[in-house]
Amino acid sequence: MSITVVGSVALDTVETPAGKNEEGLGGAATYFSLAAVHYAPIHLVGVVGEDFPQAHVDLFRNRGIHLEGLERAPGRTFRWTGRYHADVNERDTLETQLNVFEDFHPRLPEAARKSPYLFLGNIHPALQLEVLEQVKPKFTALDTMNLWIDIAQADLRQVLARTDAIIINDAEVKLLTGRANVIRGARDVAALGPRIVVVKKGEHGCLLFVDDTVFSAPAFPLETVVDPTGAGDTFAGGFMGYIAQQNSLDLATLRRAVIHGSVVASFACEDFGPGPLVTLTPERIAGRYDKFKALVDF
Amino acid sequence: MSITVVGSVALDTVETPAGKNEEGLGGAATYFSLAAVHYAPIHLVGVVGEDFPQAHVDLFRNRGIHLEGLERAPGRTFRWTGRYHADVNERDTLETQLNVFEDFHPRLPEAARKSPYLFLGNIHPALQLEVLEQVKPKFTALDTMNLWIDIAQADLRQVLARTDAIIINDAEVKLLTGRANVIRGARDVAALGPRIVVVKKGEHGCLLFVDDTVFSAPAFPLETVVDPTGAGDTFAGGFMGYIAQQNSLDLATLRRAVIHGSVVASFACEDFGPGPLVTLTPERIAGRYDKFKALVDF
Repeated sequence: MSITVVGSVALDTVETPAGKNEEGLGGAATYFSLAAVHYAPIHLVGVVGEDFPQAHVDLFRNRGIHLEGLERAPGRTFRWTGRYHADVNERDTLETQLNVFEDFHPRLPEAARKSPYLFLGNIHPALQLEVLEQVKPKFTALDTMNLWIDIAQADLRQVLARTDAIIINDAEVKLLTGRANVIRGARDVAALGPRIVVVKKGEHGCLLFVDDTVFSAPAFPLETVVDPTGAGDTFAGGFMGYIAQQNSLDLATLRRAVIHGSVVASFACEDFGPGPLVTLTPERIAGRYDKFKALVDF
Repeated sequence: MSITVVGSVALDTVETPAGKNEEGLGGAATYFSLAAVHYAPIHLVGVVGEDFPQAHVDLFRNRGIHLEGLERAPGRTFRWTGRYHADVNERDTLETQLNVFEDFHPRLPEAARKSPYLFLGNIHPALQLEVLEQVKPKFTALDTMNLWIDIAQADLRQVLARTDAIIINDAEVKLLTGRANVIRGARDVAALGPRIVVVKKGEHGCLLFVDDTVFSAPAFPLETVVDPTGAGDTFAGGFMGYIAQQNSLDLATLRRAVIHGSVVASFACEDFGPGPLVTLTPERIAGRYDKFKALVDF
């Protein structure tokens, strides 16, 4: 079953202990799509500027990602510049240029409106609401960030009331709920709407809350993290992709989906930008999935 | 098979968001012993002052812990005072009074010297070396802390060269090895001697490194942590206890030992002091062990 993703397509300049990557392909919808397309058909909805390299458009197209919803607007593409610390779990945003994203209002083409699965990438909750006005998906998941919790929480709560799943990090859970304990915080998030709460903890893996159950998934023990940019969106792509492929929301599927998200996210960290996702194969995904099995086996 | 533990027996004053506990039974050897005795005979080696309540001595004795190595010295018992933050993963030490611990030199009685398993609690590495001069155990594990890494690293490295396992937290791995990546750091720690490296990550569980393998164990998702004091020593007690009970060092045993450590540590956090360890039963340990299975099952 197909997935529609709405989110940013960007040019990222990233510095990590492993080196620097200038104006590389980035953005939440980019990482999500290139991960999820290994599992399901993808409709990408976003906006780029006149300067967005045709090579990136060709990359999406060659991967079979549907681009009817990728608008090209007058002006420059959204840009993000960040620098990671020696501990790559910490980073500073040096610059964010919204550019064409500033006036973006998602318009979903006919085909994208029909997807039974919808992923609302990390954009202003008001825009996420605009998307929800256009569609009636079977399953909606969303990402958000500390900025929207701070400045647009009323809108965000409206979105939450209408979504099935949220993928959020532990710091955001604490910010949104005021709970120091992440388990209690996740329960509080679920009470705002989403039956499924995935709490990402970076190098510590993630937790999946469904009804009264908890599932703990490890992160893959990477000795070298070249560039963690987009790991969260990549995780969401693997997670949603597997759910859409299986077209099931039962607990066993959701747990395996978390592992698939973790698998593709681990690959994404192994080089700058989304390149590792492009060259990924079903065999390599299956191989690392088995390594996750071995990692927690007792 | 029996275990000898050398470490602190203390009176702790602890403040957490759940309340305050004044001059309660504490200390690394206390938590370790009360956890490990569920699995194996324990010889406790340490020192207390004249003010140490007889009720605590009786508690140890009633649990069957061998106390020939528990010295009562003139003066006051070691005291620790700490305050936890709203996020109980953070704490401040308000006061440490070494008292009788200042002049402590561990003297192992005959029975304690015969234990095939030895746990060196978090004391000055020079004292850990004094213990190693008195015994030839089959298996030695040790704990340490940032203070000894800072001020007594040469001694610590001597101890490490002579131990089979170290139980250490992630911040200490980074401090000891200078590695921002904990996986690489753990490999570097292993290169200093211990074949087995257990990296504790508090609410994020722990990692077990043995040869080239990695095992990731979750923490138990507790909605209420009343008092995490001693959780690390309790973990060590469950870990060593299970190994001594099974009298095996194969990989499957070591992985299950990590889960047993996590099980008893999770109980220890549910009330102030080591009380929860006293009332623990084999049935409750087995029940929570099964919950750990379910927690990671996919």
